[in-house]
Amino acid sequence: MVLRLGHRPQRDKRVTTHVALVARAFGADGIILTTKDAGIERSVNKVTELWGGPFFIKSGESWRKVIEDWRSNGGSVVHLTMYGLPVEDVLPRLHGKDLLIVVGAEKVPGEIFELADFNVAVTNQPHSEVGALAVMLDKLFYGSKLEKQHLNGKFRIIPSDKWKNVQKVH
Amino acid sequence: MVLRLGHRPQRDKRVTTHVALVARAFGADGIILTTKDAGIERSVNKVTELWGGPFFIKSGESWRKVIEDWRSNGGSVVHLTMYGLPVEDVLPRLHGKDLLIVVGAEKVPGEIFELADFNVAVTNQPHSEVGALAVMLDKLFYGSKLEKQHLNGKFRIIPSDKWKNVQKVH
Repeated sequence: MVLRLGHRPQRDKRVTTHVALVARAFGADGIILTTKDAGIERSVNKVTELWGGPFFIKSGESWRKVIEDWRSNGGSVVHLTMYGLPVEDVLPRLHGKDLLIVVGAEKVPGEIFELADFNVAVTNQPHSEVGALAVMLDKLFYGSKLEKQHLNGKFRIIPSDKWKNVQKVH
Repeated sequence: MVLRLGHRPQRDKRVTTHVALVARAFGADGIILTTKDAGIERSVNKVTELWGGPFFIKSGESWRKVIEDWRSNGGSVVHLTMYGLPVEDVLPRLHGKDLLIVVGAEKVPGEIFELADFNVAVTNQPHSEVGALAVMLDKLFYGSKLEKQHLNGKFRIIPSDKWKNVQKVH
């Protein structure tokens, strides 16, 4: 599961939507936003309805409670940060664990570094929580090969080198 | 090099900045935006100054001219699109080529599909051009291991599992 911190509805709307869609496309089971945002919930649920799930989105929950609940259920917490240990080094320690992946917006409370079981960097360079999450989930779930997911959507794409080929499934 | 299409300064400011920073962090040599945006140029150049380069950003150039120039210099054009062929299948054909990677915003002119040498999908699901570019460049340049880049920045991060450890280089 993915936990998105510090979402500001006006400013972060599009980036948070990208975070949520990356979470879904790369195999996370759902995402929680710490700030309530019914608009993003609707648009992400619409994508899941059309292109398949399961994938859940919730918003307006306390990050502290989400993290505490996760840990009390035996899960591990990964915080994606440019200051963390290289993802390649940490990856072997993550397999088989039930992971909550925490991604911040601009500012992340310092306490998150302490609460996380793993502070993980996807490059130690400033870039994007969207890019970091995509690479992290790709490495976690797909290894070197993107597998087809069994998504139950209304549409699916027939991969094509030259045009948009979309098939209506049902 | 990365070519970002259809950037709308108000609406796409933050997502385009993420695209540019991902391009830099994952080893592209520069990015061109089709819409002029001096603000994004400044903020990306600031990151390059602090965290190292080389990396260039230009904006306000015609996508058609950029693509034609690239091809006339012997380069190949990759268009990232959810409708394309799976990245895993295409990857072996890309090695050794001088690549222009084209990423769109909401709508991409149909002609791009025709002009591209490769239409490539990072999953055939809707998600994010930021995530798609990050995974693509990660697979192209780093394979299964993120290598250190020789970046000549004023700061660098000492990877840490528990706190922000930033070193001033010069």
